[in-house]
Amino acid sequence: MEYFPPALEALTEQFARLPGVGKKSAQRLAFFVLGLSEEEAHAFADAIVTAKRTIALCPECQNFTEGDGLCPICRSSRRDGTTICVVADPKDVNALERSREYSGRYHVLHGVISPMNHIGPDDLHIKELLERVSAGGVGEVIMATNPTTEGEATAMYLSRLLKPFGVKVTRLAYGVPVGGQLEYADDATLTRALEGRREM
Amino acid sequence: MEYFPPALEALTEQFARLPGVGKKSAQRLAFFVLGLSEEEAHAFADAIVTAKRTIALCPECQNFTEGDGLCPICRSSRRDGTTICVVADPKDVNALERSREYSGRYHVLHGVISPMNHIGPDDLHIKELLERVSAGGVGEVIMATNPTTEGEATAMYLSRLLKPFGVKVTRLAYGVPVGGQLEYADDATLTRALEGRREM
Repeated sequence: MEYFPPALEALTEQFARLPGVGKKSAQRLAFFVLGLSEEEAHAFADAIVTAKRTIALCPECQNFTEGDGLCPICRSSRRDGTTICVVADPKDVNALERSREYSGRYHVLHGVISPMNHIGPDDLHIKELLERVSAGGVGEVIMATNPTTEGEATAMYLSRLLKPFGVKVTRLAYGVPVGGQLEYADDATLTRALEGRREM
Repeated sequence: MEYFPPALEALTEQFARLPGVGKKSAQRLAFFVLGLSEEEAHAFADAIVTAKRTIALCPECQNFTEGDGLCPICRSSRRDGTTICVVADPKDVNALERSREYSGRYHVLHGVISPMNHIGPDDLHIKELLERVSAGGVGEVIMATNPTTEGEATAMYLSRLLKPFGVKVTRLAYGVPVGGQLEYADDATLTRALEGRREM
């Protein structure tokens, strides 16, 4: 008689829905929750509901933000509004912010075009990007999607849509990662690094 | 300006507390929750609170059970109450039940003695096991802790505690796993398999 209390089964199923969490891990996570104190379990549940309730998309750049207004980056007057950096994911905004090199604004697509996964242009926040550019005042759009086939295809697609607006469309440079070793760089990266070589 | 809304940070931290979930995975899980519908997020939060509220330990075997009473196995009159199988974890009960070979009762320790992790005998449900055995009616206690150093040490410790009660204490057999290949069996397993060989 294999037996788990239904409430434990239900919790395991919830965890198993998370990306990258299999049935076995989900069970381990459910057991962990049972080991929490009553307050800790409530804090966990509250964090889920609160995050879902309070976090919305910034009406301008589509990044996650708290409340209905603009996100801190779109609100900031110190950011250069003439440059928009297009990324696939909110995590990419933070990656670029960490470099402290970029002072323009962003646009988060929330995905890339991927026919394999049935994600077409209409599933991404492309319309909002076109509205921002057509509203005027934008001089350059930097494509910063991942250097994967899908990321590249999405960047190509967007650049064609944006060209008619007379805006400059650029792409992040490809090359050997800083601190990496040539020996371990793949052929495609080395080819791009050679193509993009600069005079010293 | 690296920025995540506080509610998103809070949710990420909650996920990061789960065993085997690092900061990066926690962020991915938090993003996944934001992608859920309002109802789905509530269902997830409810599952946590409900599991924590309704699931208790069976007062007899210490396995997880719903409500305050005995678990289905301890309640069942078809189970042999004279044999107790001692396991470290509730998951082990289900593993043994899957074999359909055992018809006795269980006792769940909720861990093993592990000085490295500051888990001593008092942190496990050993007292309850001694109470069950001292109450009488138990003929055999089968140690079914994992065949690890800590599992073995815990089984040894318990067998010494139980001997004075005049109860038979046994240990699960070691050997080559069924369906496994000798070639890949480690030395310790082969040694145990030879030691435990039986006449055919």
